Amino acid sequence: MEELPGALGTSASLALRLGQAIFAVASLLFMCLDIQFYSYTAFCFLVTVMGLVIPWSLTLAVVDVISVFVMRPARQPGVLSIVVIGDWVLSFLSLAASCSTASVTSLLLASDGFCKLCTRYQLSAAMSFLSWFLCLSSSLFNLWLLPTV
Amino acid sequence: MEELPGALGTSASLALRLGQAIFAVASLLFMCLDIQFYSYTAFCFLVTVMGLVIPWSLTLAVVDVISVFVMRPARQPGVLSIVVIGDWVLSFLSLAASCSTASVTSLLLASDGFCKLCTRYQLSAAMSFLSWFLCLSSSLFNLWLLPTV
Repeated sequence: MEELPGALGTSASLALRLGQAIFAVASLLFMCLDIQFYSYTAFCFLVTVMGLVIPWSLTLAVVDVISVFVMRPARQPGVLSIVVIGDWVLSFLSLAASCSTASVTSLLLASDGFCKLCTRYQLSAAMSFLSWFLCLSSSLFNLWLLPTV
Repeated sequence: MEELPGALGTSASLALRLGQAIFAVASLLFMCLDIQFYSYTAFCFLVTVMGLVIPWSLTLAVVDVISVFVMRPARQPGVLSIVVIGDWVLSFLSLAASCSTASVTSLLLASDGFCKLCTRYQLSAAMSFLSWFLCLSSSLFNLWLLPTV
């Protein structure tokens, strides 16, 4: 079987997963560190979703590491379907969370005029947008691979 | 070729397209009628996206009507790819718009306490969620059909 870069078990996939995890961690740090984010529903949603993305990406990164450096396990269609669906759901959730955060931040900026923490909220939303994009790419690469398994 | 319900040119697809257009129009009406929505970025975004969904869905509904009641044109992979990609982009945009609207509405409710128009904003967000869901279903059905063309 020819090797599609970005599909489960390749080094490109490992890079995508690490990127997702790093951007999700950055988004969490910008949002949570020293801020009371509980007062806004959208920010709680972002924190929840990023808290889901990080373990998911790290688990699959471990699978990729094993597959690249140790041995290549046989790909099973069932496992690959679960990975595709999981990536897909997480990408929808992180898109929703980052849009909510961005719009709430823009509303806060417009109503306050002087919003000290809004830069951090914006950075957090930008990081979760990047995480969404990488998540979606992983999902598409694996979806592409699915019919050939 | 066996007929997949929901794919381009079937009566199920016509129902999906009409549903998308109706929900998008409802969302626009709840949002625009007698309200100054220009002050919030998220609401302008919602209006823009719904303004894109309506002509797209109506055009494809006309294609479906012709295909169901008059004659069945040959399906071309190029056209089907464009439909899948268009549906897909519009579904992402409408998800983003409805999440932004919902989060801004929840923020307005929390900060005002007494927000007379928030019910209408919530209804508008709910309608655009439904429109997103139907758009995504159309995209999936057509994507399913794509390899068999």
